[in-house]
Amino acid sequence: MTRQPDPRRRNEQSRRAILQAAAELCVQVGFAATTVEGIAARAGVGKQTIYRWWPSKAAVLLEYMQDLRAATADFLDTGDVLTDLVAQTTAVQRLLTSDAGAIWRGLLVTAQTDDAAASGVRELIERAIDDGRARLATAQRDGQIRADVDLDIAVELIFGPLYHAWLLRARTLPEQHMAEVLRTLFAGLAPTPA
Amino acid sequence: MTRQPDPRRRNEQSRRAILQAAAELCVQVGFAATTVEGIAARAGVGKQTIYRWWPSKAAVLLEYMQDLRAATADFLDTGDVLTDLVAQTTAVQRLLTSDAGAIWRGLLVTAQTDDAAASGVRELIERAIDDGRARLATAQRDGQIRADVDLDIAVELIFGPLYHAWLLRARTLPEQHMAEVLRTLFAGLAPTPA
Repeated sequence: MTRQPDPRRRNEQSRRAILQAAAELCVQVGFAATTVEGIAARAGVGKQTIYRWWPSKAAVLLEYMQDLRAATADFLDTGDVLTDLVAQTTAVQRLLTSDAGAIWRGLLVTAQTDDAAASGVRELIERAIDDGRARLATAQRDGQIRADVDLDIAVELIFGPLYHAWLLRARTLPEQHMAEVLRTLFAGLAPTPA
Repeated sequence: MTRQPDPRRRNEQSRRAILQAAAELCVQVGFAATTVEGIAARAGVGKQTIYRWWPSKAAVLLEYMQDLRAATADFLDTGDVLTDLVAQTTAVQRLLTSDAGAIWRGLLVTAQTDDAAASGVRELIERAIDDGRARLATAQRDGQIRADVDLDIAVELIFGPLYHAWLLRARTLPEQHMAEVLRTLFAGLAPTPA
């Protein structure tokens, strides 16, 4: 019995090689100078192979970011929501301050002027927000978050400060930054009533 | 006695006319297509008049944004910090969702790739953050904010969610959005201990 090559497996290898090449090139030459031609050359494939699967370099890089987030910054459920949020958001902070942060910054900038990139970026952000909201919903059901908290607002209270510090202020964040943000958010700013 | 024209006054009128022309042009044609030449033509001044005072279109538009924020979104101190924060951040939300929001978006995008614009944008953001922190410091001294809250983190917990919703998600925000965000932040996410 002869074994047929598995086309799906070959595609997956090729897909990963292309995503990896795109990410490396983007980090090396910057988002603006990254081209589909350059990605193809670096991955050792034809340009048409890339265009068969992705409409643009932004689409390739978005898929890279989506894979990376899924692999490194998934939400866990250990039963304690604060522990899980600290772990997940600290992983996101690590991503943002790694080479991948430069890729994500390039995509966010492009999204402000390119409609296709904008819808891809928004989809990725909404997916992350849905994941966060799902973890918060479990916590709220378990009584770890007040019943009257609007979870859409809670998600933005968690990710907003991180993006504000990273994207707008470009400030250097200590490793325990998100632990402190989340501790403050869970306790609230108001003094405990006497 | 003959009256001398006041050169400072004339300059202030001219300054305002140039800022206004820059803002109108930017809203009309978009940030990328706005030029110093176009601003000069619209303001009815020579290009050199603009370059005498500002190094670039970004610098003109930054000064416009700074004036606008000072005029419409200053921090008050009525004695109740939550009231004052709701008023100020709701005014900022109104700015972001007005024509000025498109100008600010253009400046934020440019800041990601242009160092001079980046330092101007950062200065404007840091000034807003300093104002916010000063109001929070008074509140903390007055016992309206817990003594152990880090005010740098508190400021990002206040402005972060607004920028996250506006810049990254481009979602439509109800007028009372920041009131709800701030109410949630002051109360905290954790359930009240029984």
